[in-house]
Amino acid sequence: MTTTAASVAAPITLIEILQDKATRLRIDSIRATTAAGSGHPTSCASAAEIVAALFFSVMRYDPKQPHGAANDAFVLSKGHAAPVLYSAWSEAGLFPREHLLSLRQVGSDLEGHPTPRLPYVDVASGSLGQGLPAGIGIALHARLNKSDQRVYVLMGDGESAEGSVWEAAELAAHYGVDNVCAIIDVNRLGQSGPTMLQHRMDMYRARWEAFGWRAIVVDGHDLAALLNAFAEAKTTKGRPTIVLAETLKGKGMDGYEDKEGWHGKPLPKDEAQRVVGILEKSLTGAEDHWTSNLPSRRSAGETRTVTAAPKSPYKIGGTEVATRKAFGDALQALAKFNPRVVALDGDVKNSTHSDEFLAAAPERFFEGYIAEQNMVGMSMGLAARGAIPFASTFACFLSRAYDFIRMAAISNLNVKFGGTHVGVAIGEDGPSQMGLEDIAMFAAQPNFTVLYPSDATSAWAATMLAADLVGPTYIRLGRPNNPIIYGPEEQFAIGKAKLVRGGDNDRVLVVAGGVTLFEALKAYDELKNAGIQIRVIDLFSIQPIDRETLMASARAAGNRVITVEDHYSHGGLGDAVQSALSSERIPVYKIAITRIAHSGKPRDLIEKFGISSKAIVEKVRALAG
Amino acid sequence: MTTTAASVAAPITLIEILQDKATRLRIDSIRATTAAGSGHPTSCASAAEIVAALFFSVMRYDPKQPHGAANDAFVLSKGHAAPVLYSAWSEAGLFPREHLLSLRQVGSDLEGHPTPRLPYVDVASGSLGQGLPAGIGIALHARLNKSDQRVYVLMGDGESAEGSVWEAAELAAHYGVDNVCAIIDVNRLGQSGPTMLQHRMDMYRARWEAFGWRAIVVDGHDLAALLNAFAEAKTTKGRPTIVLAETLKGKGMDGYEDKEGWHGKPLPKDEAQRVVGILEKSLTGAEDHWTSNLPSRRSAGETRTVTAAPKSPYKIGGTEVATRKAFGDALQALAKFNPRVVALDGDVKNSTHSDEFLAAAPERFFEGYIAEQNMVGMSMGLAARGAIPFASTFACFLSRAYDFIRMAAISNLNVKFGGTHVGVAIGEDGPSQMGLEDIAMFAAQPNFTVLYPSDATSAWAATMLAADLVGPTYIRLGRPNNPIIYGPEEQFAIGKAKLVRGGDNDRVLVVAGGVTLFEALKAYDELKNAGIQIRVIDLFSIQPIDRETLMASARAAGNRVITVEDHYSHGGLGDAVQSALSSERIPVYKIAITRIAHSGKPRDLIEKFGISSKAIVEKVRALAG
Repeated sequence: MTTTAASVAAPITLIEILQDKATRLRIDSIRATTAAGSGHPTSCASAAEIVAALFFSVMRYDPKQPHGAANDAFVLSKGHAAPVLYSAWSEAGLFPREHLLSLRQVGSDLEGHPTPRLPYVDVASGSLGQGLPAGIGIALHARLNKSDQRVYVLMGDGESAEGSVWEAAELAAHYGVDNVCAIIDVNRLGQSGPTMLQHRMDMYRARWEAFGWRAIVVDGHDLAALLNAFAEAKTTKGRPTIVLAETLKGKGMDGYEDKEGWHGKPLPKDEAQRVVGILEKSLTGAEDHWTSNLPSRRSAGETRTVTAAPKSPYKIGGTEVATRKAFGDALQALAKFNPRVVALDGDVKNSTHSDEFLAAAPERFFEGYIAEQNMVGMSMGLAARGAIPFASTFACFLSRAYDFIRMAAISNLNVKFGGTHVGVAIGEDGPSQMGLEDIAMFAAQPNFTVLYPSDATSAWAATMLAADLVGPTYIRLGRPNNPIIYGPEEQFAIGKAKLVRGGDNDRVLVVAGGVTLFEALKAYDELKNAGIQIRVIDLFSIQPIDRETLMASARAAGNRVITVEDHYSHGGLGDAVQSALSSERIPVYKIAITRIAHSGKPRDLIEKFGISSKAIVEKVRALAG
Repeated sequence: MTTTAASVAAPITLIEILQDKATRLRIDSIRATTAAGSGHPTSCASAAEIVAALFFSVMRYDPKQPHGAANDAFVLSKGHAAPVLYSAWSEAGLFPREHLLSLRQVGSDLEGHPTPRLPYVDVASGSLGQGLPAGIGIALHARLNKSDQRVYVLMGDGESAEGSVWEAAELAAHYGVDNVCAIIDVNRLGQSGPTMLQHRMDMYRARWEAFGWRAIVVDGHDLAALLNAFAEAKTTKGRPTIVLAETLKGKGMDGYEDKEGWHGKPLPKDEAQRVVGILEKSLTGAEDHWTSNLPSRRSAGETRTVTAAPKSPYKIGGTEVATRKAFGDALQALAKFNPRVVALDGDVKNSTHSDEFLAAAPERFFEGYIAEQNMVGMSMGLAARGAIPFASTFACFLSRAYDFIRMAAISNLNVKFGGTHVGVAIGEDGPSQMGLEDIAMFAAQPNFTVLYPSDATSAWAATMLAADLVGPTYIRLGRPNNPIIYGPEEQFAIGKAKLVRGGDNDRVLVVAGGVTLFEALKAYDELKNAGIQIRVIDLFSIQPIDRETLMASARAAGNRVITVEDHYSHGGLGDAVQSALSSERIPVYKIAITRIAHSGKPRDLIEKFGISSKAIVEKVRALAG
């Protein structure tokens, strides 16, 4: 390391060490972004003291075990400050120093936003307002595991305009999550202009206090003040703490402090050299006296006695059961069977039946109230730390959290979503409550597994499969009671469809899922009576899709394929089937919802919007006749 | 109307009239929901005095012109209270009384959530936390038009956990929107349990005050207190007002007040009769003395001198321009050309180039800061009142507001969204900033028009077409500079593709859009040199799609079709083309992004993720060879 060779006579104080570290973080950030030709050095500079205080004094972590459960967690919600974080990692021994100054070598993710490809990153940042919900998920996980791990979340000031921040603020206070300490780097300047509140620190304080947090306003460049604030946060019980740090964008960068027009711009080479030169002169050498703070504790270990997964309780032809009810039943079984499973709700637990989990394992159930972004964000944090979170609400309301779902996919987190009340089949509650775009939304994310069970047995199986699978998963669930067509011994697998009707003289293949499977079965009976044989597939797994079974069945049915779904036409089950078969020159005829629905009786809507057995029969006759 | 025949000796007071009206609203709500067999009578009962005060004293509106621009606006964000609203409409002469008690006749939308099919509804409710953003949009529209119209937004208490409410709260205070008065019906009980804050009115007050609002706490069943609060709101200048009304769920319904377990449940017939009987006895007949409050003002009229739409300034082969830049240029032209056009931003105006609109028409530009749900919600309110709002941000961040976009589709609002920085072509900023699911998201909504211009000329045209079209529209825009391939005279139309290369011996049709069009053109050149002719279509309009041109071109190219797109595979351009051609037995080979991306140089990513000219050439050779 390059330092000035100043002799150090007086004992070195922690503040001197940290000040040197902060300077070092600034130097690295300027160099790294100039070398990369992109990045946000001024956003790094404002956070240098905050990050130095956290990484070199406040937080406990073992650089040799970056993912150790006993480490304190750091969530960089303010994604722009990535270089300062990499610098801190490098200083702390978490990250090879040589990577720092040639960021493009490592993958230029480093210029902007951390991704989970790097050590010590659980959750990708880069979409603002997601760090606090994730941090609260991590904190809840620590509490569940009786760990005294603390969670630090660094936010930007502009991002606190995101509603998700306030959803998280309210929930964290409600649950008294006192192992979270959030920090806002209030540097006054957004990307395209000043923030709404600029440096009105009292307004920040009033808001956070009103939301039930302990709020501490500090000069964010005053290391002693920062250390005091973090110490106070540690001893604050029963509520979370926020450190509101008044800072300057570009602080310490000669000529760039608090200046508009320098967001996201690296310094030109000569300027970088000049500014770094000035910073280097201010180094005292104290930084070399830093010693790391190893965690002195252990988190409670988890034990799990592996037994056979509980079996579905439903019998073929038994009382009709809704798939959402079977989801709730399965969640309850999982509550007892797998201690890693947790459940989250958005004030609809009596409709989604996730209240069955609450009854069985209240300590692992988190009521997220009507705040879906935070519900999904908390799931991301919980998953990042090893829990298996099942977050459920009406499918349509998961659209509220699509940006979080997108980021969960980017992080490839082990989150599980249950979306209930899909399609026009919900009936009276009307279009605002109908999930008609959920397949499009989830299947677009290429690493999401998307399951669509049709009866209670398969919904139970889907829930068990989701719990076992490592990776983001969505289960599409319906409101109405359906007949039970599979027995408890039936085997389901991800990527496997079910051939439910088929013979030797099939004229058309009908691929369905959920309520439309029962329409297809009705069509089968009607057509059979008329002497026309069809083949019926229950798709079950939309992504990955069972191309093999689809192809074989399409071939067996004269290459005539109809898909039928209670979902909008674009991006649904039909498109998935079409993509699986298109290159094989097998045409696919989609039957789906093609316009905005309205409310009515479920049966009437299924008829009116053209996804009933009648529509199937007509199409089959047109194709086969 | 059935009233008790009590003689009225003393002069009738306004409070007596309103109390009768409130009782009438309760009676109607109980009857209507029991008749329908579903609905939320207890949620109606808690709001009865609030709605009575607003509709029968505070608000000014002309029942004969329910959509009159001079009317005060009422936004029912708390969708569950729809029956109480219909009752008020009926009492006010806006709605045929006979429809009220046989809700199923009108369309059972009435049981749950108002839809725009009904008079006096601008924006559908039913997804909580969307009313306030929409209300602020309506209020901004009134301000723009120098109208003294006031906007009342009735929210539930549970929904104030939605972050979008706080995004709107912050913005409204920032803009000093004092013609908005919001009301929270704090009835303590959510769907599945008590709300987080229950009846802690001081905490509600502290939060709203901290967000810059005038907050007035009242007993929500005390009509005099409500009238005073609304009067105070009217005289409050420079900031919006919130009336925090402490109420009881089921108020006035004997045996059901403040009871858990009655959310969304109509009373059984006999119980309905009993409770209504008690309520009827409390009617005094004062309700008959109500006279309506006509608006005494006019909103400023809009005038527009129609001239020819401004023409694109770009020349074929001129300096390369990004489609986002052309979008900004066109917005600037629209700012001058069409006074109904307004623009909204989420702190990225210097990246999306919407700052060009700001420069031309600052009074019609709304900086939404980093709060996308509210930005979209405000657009919905603005559109509902006749403005043509263009809201733009990075395409990936529109996913933040997908639930709002879904509701805008249900309301068929005239909103326009520009999503910039799509695909891996953005390069260094990494996956968190790449819009790779935006086509899936927007095209799933069946009434959305989805345009995907490839060069500056077509981006300009798409923006002009969007402004002219009545209906929800999305424009997909890219980051990199592209060559200009169309001249200013080129005609574009919604639903029309452009055949950009084609001859008599074409072996394969390649359908592309945005950056992949230029890859297809490179492939064309390379293949031509190798003696293989291909046909290239610039899709331009993804929804509606130009089936005719696609079919004709596919036929002309031997029924071999390749699609190539900088979007995830499911729900993208390829699926749209596939659906258009599938029933014609024309196989379609999709080239798209099939896994989570990372950051890098744009060129490297286009190659690595397999959407380059090289991938096209290979596929063409495989098909044609």
